[in-house]
Amino acid sequence: MRSRILKDHLKEECGVFGIMSAEARVSTLTYYGLFALQHRGQESAGIAVSDGREIFLHKAMGLVGEVFDDATLKRLGGEIACGHVRYSTSGDSNVINAQPLVFKTRYGTIALCHNGNLANSIFLRNDLKEHGAIFQTTVDTEVIAAMLARGNGEDLVTTIREVSRELKGAYALIIMTSDKLIGIRDPYGIRPLCIGKIGDDFMLSSESCAFETVGGTLIRDVYPGEIVEIDRSGITSHLPYGKREERLCIFEFIYFGRPDSIMKDQSLYMSRKTAGKILFREFPASADFVCSVPDSGTPSAIGFSEASGIPFLEGLVKNRYVGRTFIKPSQNQREIGVSLKLNVLEEVVRGRSIVLVDDSIVRGTTVKRLISRLRVAGAKEIHLRISAPPVVWPCYFGIDTPSREELLGARYSTDEIGKLVDADSIGYLSLEGLVEATGRSGFCTGCLSGEYPVDVDEINGKLALEGRAMR
Amino acid sequence: MRSRILKDHLKEECGVFGIMSAEARVSTLTYYGLFALQHRGQESAGIAVSDGREIFLHKAMGLVGEVFDDATLKRLGGEIACGHVRYSTSGDSNVINAQPLVFKTRYGTIALCHNGNLANSIFLRNDLKEHGAIFQTTVDTEVIAAMLARGNGEDLVTTIREVSRELKGAYALIIMTSDKLIGIRDPYGIRPLCIGKIGDDFMLSSESCAFETVGGTLIRDVYPGEIVEIDRSGITSHLPYGKREERLCIFEFIYFGRPDSIMKDQSLYMSRKTAGKILFREFPASADFVCSVPDSGTPSAIGFSEASGIPFLEGLVKNRYVGRTFIKPSQNQREIGVSLKLNVLEEVVRGRSIVLVDDSIVRGTTVKRLISRLRVAGAKEIHLRISAPPVVWPCYFGIDTPSREELLGARYSTDEIGKLVDADSIGYLSLEGLVEATGRSGFCTGCLSGEYPVDVDEINGKLALEGRAMR
Amino acid sequence: MRSRILKDHLKEECGVFGIMSAEARVSTLTYYGLFALQHRGQESAGIAVSDGREIFLHKAMGLVGEVFDDATLKRLGGEIACGHVRYSTSGDSNVINAQPLVFKTRYGTIALCHNGNLANSIFLRNDLKEHGAIFQTTVDTEVIAAMLARGNGEDLVTTIREVSRELKGAYALIIMTSDKLIGIRDPYGIRPLCIGKIGDDFMLSSESCAFETVGGTLIRDVYPGEIVEIDRSGITSHLPYGKREERLCIFEFIYFGRPDSIMKDQSLYMSRKTAGKILFREFPASADFVCSVPDSGTPSAIGFSEASGIPFLEGLVKNRYVGRTFIKPSQNQREIGVSLKLNVLEEVVRGRSIVLVDDSIVRGTTVKRLISRLRVAGAKEIHLRISAPPVVWPCYFGIDTPSREELLGARYSTDEIGKLVDADSIGYLSLEGLVEATGRSGFCTGCLSGEYPVDVDEINGKLALEGRAMR
Amino acid sequence: MRSRILKDHLKEECGVFGIMSAEARVSTLTYYGLFALQHRGQESAGIAVSDGREIFLHKAMGLVGEVFDDATLKRLGGEIACGHVRYSTSGDSNVINAQPLVFKTRYGTIALCHNGNLANSIFLRNDLKEHGAIFQTTVDTEVIAAMLARGNGEDLVTTIREVSRELKGAYALIIMTSDKLIGIRDPYGIRPLCIGKIGDDFMLSSESCAFETVGGTLIRDVYPGEIVEIDRSGITSHLPYGKREERLCIFEFIYFGRPDSIMKDQSLYMSRKTAGKILFREFPASADFVCSVPDSGTPSAIGFSEASGIPFLEGLVKNRYVGRTFIKPSQNQREIGVSLKLNVLEEVVRGRSIVLVDDSIVRGTTVKRLISRLRVAGAKEIHLRISAPPVVWPCYFGIDTPSREELLGARYSTDEIGKLVDADSIGYLSLEGLVEATGRSGFCTGCLSGEYPVDVDEINGKLALEGRAMR
Repeated sequence: MRSRILKDHLKEECGVFGIMSAEARVSTLTYYGLFALQHRGQESAGIAVSDGREIFLHKAMGLVGEVFDDATLKRLGGEIACGHVRYSTSGDSNVINAQPLVFKTRYGTIALCHNGNLANSIFLRNDLKEHGAIFQTTVDTEVIAAMLARGNGEDLVTTIREVSRELKGAYALIIMTSDKLIGIRDPYGIRPLCIGKIGDDFMLSSESCAFETVGGTLIRDVYPGEIVEIDRSGITSHLPYGKREERLCIFEFIYFGRPDSIMKDQSLYMSRKTAGKILFREFPASADFVCSVPDSGTPSAIGFSEASGIPFLEGLVKNRYVGRTFIKPSQNQREIGVSLKLNVLEEVVRGRSIVLVDDSIVRGTTVKRLISRLRVAGAKEIHLRISAPPVVWPCYFGIDTPSREELLGARYSTDEIGKLVDADSIGYLSLEGLVEATGRSGFCTGCLSGEYPVDVDEINGKLALEGRAMR
Repeated sequence: MRSRILKDHLKEECGVFGIMSAEARVSTLTYYGLFALQHRGQESAGIAVSDGREIFLHKAMGLVGEVFDDATLKRLGGEIACGHVRYSTSGDSNVINAQPLVFKTRYGTIALCHNGNLANSIFLRNDLKEHGAIFQTTVDTEVIAAMLARGNGEDLVTTIREVSRELKGAYALIIMTSDKLIGIRDPYGIRPLCIGKIGDDFMLSSESCAFETVGGTLIRDVYPGEIVEIDRSGITSHLPYGKREERLCIFEFIYFGRPDSIMKDQSLYMSRKTAGKILFREFPASADFVCSVPDSGTPSAIGFSEASGIPFLEGLVKNRYVGRTFIKPSQNQREIGVSLKLNVLEEVVRGRSIVLVDDSIVRGTTVKRLISRLRVAGAKEIHLRISAPPVVWPCYFGIDTPSREELLGARYSTDEIGKLVDADSIGYLSLEGLVEATGRSGFCTGCLSGEYPVDVDEINGKLALEGRAMR
Repeated sequence: MRSRILKDHLKEECGVFGIMSAEARVSTLTYYGLFALQHRGQESAGIAVSDGREIFLHKAMGLVGEVFDDATLKRLGGEIACGHVRYSTSGDSNVINAQPLVFKTRYGTIALCHNGNLANSIFLRNDLKEHGAIFQTTVDTEVIAAMLARGNGEDLVTTIREVSRELKGAYALIIMTSDKLIGIRDPYGIRPLCIGKIGDDFMLSSESCAFETVGGTLIRDVYPGEIVEIDRSGITSHLPYGKREERLCIFEFIYFGRPDSIMKDQSLYMSRKTAGKILFREFPASADFVCSVPDSGTPSAIGFSEASGIPFLEGLVKNRYVGRTFIKPSQNQREIGVSLKLNVLEEVVRGRSIVLVDDSIVRGTTVKRLISRLRVAGAKEIHLRISAPPVVWPCYFGIDTPSREELLGARYSTDEIGKLVDADSIGYLSLEGLVEATGRSGFCTGCLSGEYPVDVDEINGKLALEGRAMR
Repeated sequence: MRSRILKDHLKEECGVFGIMSAEARVSTLTYYGLFALQHRGQESAGIAVSDGREIFLHKAMGLVGEVFDDATLKRLGGEIACGHVRYSTSGDSNVINAQPLVFKTRYGTIALCHNGNLANSIFLRNDLKEHGAIFQTTVDTEVIAAMLARGNGEDLVTTIREVSRELKGAYALIIMTSDKLIGIRDPYGIRPLCIGKIGDDFMLSSESCAFETVGGTLIRDVYPGEIVEIDRSGITSHLPYGKREERLCIFEFIYFGRPDSIMKDQSLYMSRKTAGKILFREFPASADFVCSVPDSGTPSAIGFSEASGIPFLEGLVKNRYVGRTFIKPSQNQREIGVSLKLNVLEEVVRGRSIVLVDDSIVRGTTVKRLISRLRVAGAKEIHLRISAPPVVWPCYFGIDTPSREELLGARYSTDEIGKLVDADSIGYLSLEGLVEATGRSGFCTGCLSGEYPVDVDEINGKLALEGRAMR
């Protein structure tokens, strides 16, 4: 069986990018923009382009670098483009679900890129079916498309305002018509979306790192509930809900976002490094060196090292050239699984006491094997420090959380987890510490705290009705 | 045009792996072994397996994870296996040149895996043609195959002894017959090859990291000029040249080898970290922090940090999910090239003075652009430190060195290079410092010192005759 | 440029097949059924299967034998299946337009296979858009799907009855739900659809040859306007319009249908052979032999030979192994185009007078080059006989007729055509003769006579409104 | 399991084509030439081109139309080209065995295309191995290449003369160097090869139909043992063995050659038609009509009809659009196998007595099922007539004959065969009748008569030694 090579992490759902420019080759810039957002989804990639009259589309399964070649990009000529990279849970990993979704409506042809998850999608889908809609895919994006198409607004933006009232959950959308690029963020701002500029031209992106990659700059985040309309006359902001408090998914700060991205005017890298510092304050340790689970644990490990004065060393090295998939080792070759990606540096580790820093634990399988390997290599003590609180609750907004049976944090106390993974000591950053590290407020911390921006009982009730309980 | 995503490095040629085992599924272990050697070659991969009578082969262009699937590995049943990953220079990147090379001779069917480069291959090729040989590929491997096939020895090992006298240059070979696995290293030991064990079974590999990946352990390096014969009765060593001084390519320590590999009983990681310490001793600097060009520059940067007391921070982050290829940015999008792979952390860098550590400079294009981007991000001072001496001379033993016009170190003094790349100061680790860092002696340092293990004038003369001067 | 290898023929649009059986492996029988219908469409193929709860789908571009393999068929387990082969006009040859179309509605999940063309599809599509539908493809099938989904009927069959009243044009549909297989033919029966049996199980197919191929037998044609419902309780017929006169596309008899199919209880082969006999009666000729343009002209040529007593000989031979596509010869290699597919048998032809029989002339390019080649080979006289009347009018029901500028029959008199293609004499079978040959009545002969089963002015008017005039 | 769609025929091995022309795009003409030879091999295709200095090659598994596209042909620029289509027996159907074989020797780079089979290839291969040759493929072509490379001749043509003395068996070769095209036919002329012209330029081909397809003309067959040298100065003939009697494989006349090809100045079509006439003379029958097993049985059926006065009708129709492969019906679907390709025209057949003409019977499985289906369709009497004698002996010259256990003609008398396949009467054309039909003499009739052009005992002895008895 083939298996993706992944750390023990929650999985992001998607990345979106859009640009309008009379001068630039918009498909090329979108290509590089998606390249920078590749960490948000590696299963499919797509770009749609409008030349002012028609919309052209290319999408396929695979990485951005695999899906597109020169000839394809050249065919996608135009002055507006939007693109999408997708992560999908198993079963629906099919090109029919790849995005952008391009469809014809009475508002003309529309391309739709969606990052997020509707909490009420089954309700909406059934309601739409009752009113005669057909669904050819299994993605929420098609639900949004169907709602837009039957909106009553005189123009598309009016319709978007109306439709957004009915969408419960997390969504960051880029909508492209033949002459317009529209960015929309849900009223809680759960999923990120930001506005950038290159020369005089505007861009939209899930993360600011894409702007820098193409040579542009970040202007600001799209506000919660904001509708941003970009056309030849420039950029217009609509705030149908007025100014609202943001509830950005805190996992963007913990892990999802690229460290070089800026959200809430804050560097994700600096926030993660600060988390390491606070982690030391909350759970100090003395050891010969601080070691990270590369690459994502490194910023916090460096912060921990800085705060504690314990030197930072690499005790684990990554295989730099692994592709996306490999043949899963059989049961009696289980050890191979982790060592394909990470190997222990015995010379660094032998006889030493270690602070091992990672950014999260979901199922705990990876960290358990790493600690076992570190011990085999002669590590004296292993003090595990996690730069975020345990994941205890499900996510209703598009993040693929495992069932509670698999969620280590939901079943065991911190001490029990420490014993389970065979650490000499263990410490999880507190939620307060995490928020302090971000230097900001206004997050959805549902999976850590059980406090969601929307009424969970209502959602749970509805989900039960729909026969889809918490996974 | 499609372009591979590569740092400004010399390029390794190949990795080889072999195993004999009655119990293990040898093709599966070879698969994971090649996975661990993927950094030595990403263009093609292949595995040949013997079931005691016949040899089966599968090879194709692509990464190990792309070339093989479950069904293919299952078809490759047997008790001996050898595999190969290949890096190739452009023009010959063709499946016909992929390895193992399987061919029928009077010694039976043979599979041959080769890492290295023959200095006298054109001479040998012509000589063989004069005696009636045909060549279907452009790789040296086929020359070695043709020589083995026309050897006079009673058995293959005797023939190998004879043939090895005529091969000038660098080679690490794994040869598989229907019932035997043979490892050979050139008399100078320029390319690495080592012996490992898993249970009672023996393995051969370019690097020891492959042994650990499959759950085995390193026994020792193959000696220079040694012929190691593995069959059902165990392992036999032949030393036709007696004990010889090793002249291992020093770039295995600088960059080629994986940091978790052991060569000459020395950890490559520790050697690289020590190089960073000595680099500080030779070219001290004061700055706000030490920053590496990830990932390969990091061990030396940490060593530099440790020796200097200047904290180690990440100022550059890598895009974790780039695939192997991408569409090359056009001329006026040149900046995109570097930023697709590395991005500057402005918050870390702004207003700070930096020691930037990398492990080598070949053409200088990457480091120049990185420094320019660091300055744009607000870096105050940039002190460039390279943990190896400049590459000044060509390699005659299989490493793809650029022409002298492109070799920065061959055309400019260190100070000039510092100015060219716009560093505030620059320092290259001395050759003595580098050797000290390895804690060992017995290297080929030809590309750094111009001193080669074989008579260069002779090689140069011959190459001139062959119309193939130094590239 | 790549080009399909096609005779100078009108192009069929699609073939459909369906089966319900508790015992048989329905996907396999559908596979072989589509194999038999391959002549109706070579661009894409697809099969959907219901296991009583869920519907599984596989479709892709290519021939049936290319699109499916063992593993895919095995995955498609169930007790009801429907399949589709598609011919498409250029521009929309895209997998998104491949069928079956599977979509979710309030009636559950539905698979839809469609052969035909709606005359009022643009009107319906716009109307549906006005009411909020979205369209992701460019095929009429999606229009029908959208109409079914918003029908008011209590059950699907009631809805189908209602919807069928709004569909103007030609359609033969197979609709599959989780527990039912439904066949529908338009009220004029323009496109064919028939009912077959294998053991106790029922099948639906565009042509009866598919029943024989899978080992079953033809029961009867579906009646014009009939809705045939197949489920576990057996087969039910609905005739919402009562008994109606059929207006089957006469090109099914001339060329589209496979010669071994039965339509209107008549063998297409015998009808074509009889056409050749009547052709002799109407346009006698004396010559040394009768020659056909293989393969489709052969039955009529044999009929002509039988009636005239002139022996039938092969003067042209086909290249038996041509694939579907080839690189189009450049302008100065134009002669190659025809000779890749057909070659003249000089020894048969030299010095002889020939009756050359083909089943239709559309653009005339092929027959002109064949006659030229026959003359070069030494043919003395060439009497061209066409076993159908000239195509003069457009088809509004799904056949891809060229523009009037390209339609030879629309621009020139028979004599002029004879001169244009350089025939010594020419004769087209009369429409009366053609109908006599079929031994039946009740055809749409629109493209030959200009008499359509529906009001053309109305269609033309609507088309003009829609900006889509006669092509 | 996938299965090729084939009649019950002996299998041809290969087709070759070559051209030298300063003006024409030689790769394009070779492409079309191979297209015309596609019937001689459908497994792989390849073209090599010389631009006067270098040789470029493209080859792959698949039909000519699949292996090449515009871009590939354009890359293959030059003034000499040779190409190959291959049929292979199972097991070796691998791209490594595709041709042309391009290899470097002391005579420079050579491209080699081979049609035929060496009777002494195992002997030669072993001898070459003893002298130090290596073999990377399993095809005889590599043996010939190795022999050419070690020849003693001053130039290649001298060496070819020498080497051809050692090659026992059947071969038609096209050899291309950087500036020359050479055609060679074995001393018995067992496999065909002929010379053509287009403008002032010369071509070589297995069959003349390829010359006509590209717009050229046949000059003459290459003589047995002749070496034809084509270069810028024109064409030169070498006859190292003097004039020799030809022993062309008679199956080229029976089935292999395309009917529109000319061999021995005789039309294969006319020869086959005459065979049908003689067949009637030898085995008359009275029936309602003569029916062929299409397509290859048709010329003889027409001849039979002409001689007997019994009308020729089509009782079996072919599926025109079958691809090369399909999923093999399972055991209990065995009937489907034949009906996928051929269907009975019940209306033609019912109540009639039939003369069924085919060109050969090898295993008898197809004809047995056809007769069974004809009877089910109501045929009254079926008189089977085969326009060639039974295949009784093995072929040593490259034709893939089944084992004697499978060869119907080797195990049963004609009467027994008639009963086995359930024919009312049966007649095989006599060998004398077959030769008379060709109007020529000088054939290898080994598989029909057991009389081979070379000493069979010698071959058999050698084969026994080599452990490769008659298959």
